[in-house]
Amino acid sequence: MKIEGESRSAQKTREIIQAASMAFLDKGYDGTSMEEIATKAGVSKQTVYKHFTDKETLFGEVVRSTAVQTNDVVEYVTTMLGDAEFSEGGLQRLARRTMRMLLDDELLKLRRLIIANADRMPQLGRSWYKDGFERMMDSMAACFQRLTSRGLMKADDPHTAASHFFGMLLWIPMNEAMFTGNSDPRSKAELDRHADASVEAFLAIYGIPRES
Amino acid sequence: MKIEGESRSAQKTREIIQAASMAFLDKGYDGTSMEEIATKAGVSKQTVYKHFTDKETLFGEVVRSTAVQTNDVVEYVTTMLGDAEFSEGGLQRLARRTMRMLLDDELLKLRRLIIANADRMPQLGRSWYKDGFERMMDSMAACFQRLTSRGLMKADDPHTAASHFFGMLLWIPMNEAMFTGNSDPRSKAELDRHADASVEAFLAIYGIPRES
Repeated sequence: MKIEGESRSAQKTREIIQAASMAFLDKGYDGTSMEEIATKAGVSKQTVYKHFTDKETLFGEVVRSTAVQTNDVVEYVTTMLGDAEFSEGGLQRLARRTMRMLLDDELLKLRRLIIANADRMPQLGRSWYKDGFERMMDSMAACFQRLTSRGLMKADDPHTAASHFFGMLLWIPMNEAMFTGNSDPRSKAELDRHADASVEAFLAIYGIPRES
Repeated sequence: MKIEGESRSAQKTREIIQAASMAFLDKGYDGTSMEEIATKAGVSKQTVYKHFTDKETLFGEVVRSTAVQTNDVVEYVTTMLGDAEFSEGGLQRLARRTMRMLLDDELLKLRRLIIANADRMPQLGRSWYKDGFERMMDSMAACFQRLTSRGLMKADDPHTAASHFFGMLLWIPMNEAMFTGNSDPRSKAELDRHADASVEAFLAIYGIPRES
């Protein structure tokens, strides 16, 4: 599909990355050949090599572009949590939504692939960690800093607060999904309860007690 | 090495599991053959097959036995956190020690291998999750329940409290280790500060404010 204003070369690059992403998620890194990616993208193998030096570079691009996309959503969600929205209910919506987004099946598969290859391709894992994981923490920390400066919460160290927020929210469901391969996902209601409990705990640390 | 009172067959089983563990961590699941494991264990291939039906079963045993060993240590550590030890300092020692133990290089490699194969061998990941991850949560929850019943902390839902404890403590360092392949580990002092901050936050939720 063509995106308006996109150059022909940018379009090809994007289509190859999309095809590569599907192939890697389907068959793993070792199980995927550049030939297959070319076929899926509807281009020649030469074209794939013209855009990406080798399979590792292409996999790196898949990882980088997914990290950036994921973070864009998190940034959007945290920006939404403006002053007016800041309440237990607002944080709950943020927590539930972020959790569901990060437990997306394709994203979990990519996460597993990166971890599987972290020893062999440390550069790749580091890129995911920096461009995805840490930027997500940074977006959340920026949000907590803004709210603290407006007197709506108290997070002297907003980065630590962000790590506590995500840690309480995601430790159980993310590990469960990583290890059990999502074969037996929890119900939406159960996940929502889990998210709400983590928000309640988070506010016990960083919230400002209301005058009654 | 022979352990006193151990039968010859139990000794062989144990030695094969040890050899298999080293081989899998070194070369991954696909890169390891039963032949190599036999050589490492100093037994014939037939002997390996007599004890374990196939490679997947043997890998399953490696995972199960590591999960049980890890949990034994956690159980020991949480049991130590008796009433007398329960203080911010006692929890800090527990947090620092548990974190260091779980960030052990070999353990991280095994964790990566399990995640890498979670889609292909869901039974395996589920066994690690149940026998390792969940039992560790249970040990911690039992400890928090005991302390709550003695009036030393307030955790109405000790399982949720355990997930908050581990989540705040491990979310950042465990993800960093998983993705960056431990190529650039944090300093001990930095990890200790991280552990202490998570204990401070944990007590803000579940601790009992001291009368002053």
